[in-house]
Amino acid sequence: MTVTGTTPVDPGFAMLYQHIQQFYARQMQLLDDGEAEKWAETFTEDGVFDGNAFDKPAVGRSAVGTAARRAVDGYTARGIQRRHWLGMLSVEQRDADEVLVTCYAQVLETPRGGRPELRASTGCRDLLVRDGQGWLVKHRFIHRDDLG
Amino acid sequence: MTVTGTTPVDPGFAMLYQHIQQFYARQMQLLDDGEAEKWAETFTEDGVFDGNAFDKPAVGRSAVGTAARRAVDGYTARGIQRRHWLGMLSVEQRDADEVLVTCYAQVLETPRGGRPELRASTGCRDLLVRDGQGWLVKHRFIHRDDLG
Amino acid sequence: MTVTGTTPVDPGFAMLYQHIQQFYARQMQLLDDGEAEKWAETFTEDGVFDGNAFDKPAVGRSAVGTAARRAVDGYTARGIQRRHWLGMLSVEQRDADEVLVTCYAQVLETPRGGRPELRASTGCRDLLVRDGQGWLVKHRFIHRDDLG
Repeated sequence: MTVTGTTPVDPGFAMLYQHIQQFYARQMQLLDDGEAEKWAETFTEDGVFDGNAFDKPAVGRSAVGTAARRAVDGYTARGIQRRHWLGMLSVEQRDADEVLVTCYAQVLETPRGGRPELRASTGCRDLLVRDGQGWLVKHRFIHRDDLG
Repeated sequence: MTVTGTTPVDPGFAMLYQHIQQFYARQMQLLDDGEAEKWAETFTEDGVFDGNAFDKPAVGRSAVGTAARRAVDGYTARGIQRRHWLGMLSVEQRDADEVLVTCYAQVLETPRGGRPELRASTGCRDLLVRDGQGWLVKHRFIHRDDLG
Repeated sequence: MTVTGTTPVDPGFAMLYQHIQQFYARQMQLLDDGEAEKWAETFTEDGVFDGNAFDKPAVGRSAVGTAARRAVDGYTARGIQRRHWLGMLSVEQRDADEVLVTCYAQVLETPRGGRPELRASTGCRDLLVRDGQGWLVKHRFIHRDDLG
């Protein structure tokens, strides 16, 4: 059984895949640079940020942004630089305007004057929807590996 | 001296490169999800899984699957979630149906209720062969960095 | 606000992105394989390697190569295998022959007979210039996260 996404001779899929890699890079650089509100704008207005570590999901861009701002301010106050790495992207185009991404994430934290640490290993499942020329996250679920 | 794979104006190479990234993502997600047999099916029937940590290589899909099943069951029993990350892919197309990939791998392990750990850093060298629209691993060699 | 690089319907951007991933893979494999001079050849003749950990930048391919050779020999003597991972690439094409890349880097070190270690977490900012069919680094700035 061969493991395929869509056909390898589909240039559209290559462009989609690369575009999502670029999207994720810019999205996480915003968060790690402390731009919590700009990061939240990469979610739809009704976007949801959920995970197995959450009591309840953050629903809506505003709630997503508020939670991110609180987290970002905490790390800044503690002098910690975070880096969110997303990789091992498996992309499935569900229709012209909707893409499902299953990938891995690792979060590195480095305190000023200290050693870098692998803080979290997770899976990530995103439903992305097209917005003009780009994409937004409609639903994100983060599965932290330590929580089983 | 410029470091090149094939010409950057070759759209075929971009499609190949992205397709292999997608293949690796799905392949390792199968293994890390415990699907040892489905993972083994991403090797050719006569595929070989070798490495500097092995007394002898696993030869043939069946042997590859058996070894993977044993490993996967062990991690599950110990409550450990593994994540195999492949990156830094250098892709060389040898002919229409054969591709050599030289890349890096890191294996993260997270015990339930515990901290994630960088368990292994390795190089990886794959000979991939075309199978219909997709690819299969004909030969894989994993070079663990701690074993010199 | 959607986060976009260039339009996702631009196949040229997908090819560029892939090609830079391939370039980085081959470039860092050279360094990690101990090929310090070949690695330096991936910089322009007047290329600069700078960072927040440096008293002053290495200016020019020769100086870049000398510094790399010193570092590489040190790791070899200590029996340490390094792996430089670059990821989360955000690529911006400034003109036909110039590309700005903002990405993340993590450096893994594994001593012979020992455990792999996450040694450094950094940001990386590259100005790449076209050289024939490939690319060279004109300016690289590495921002180590522990140095604030």
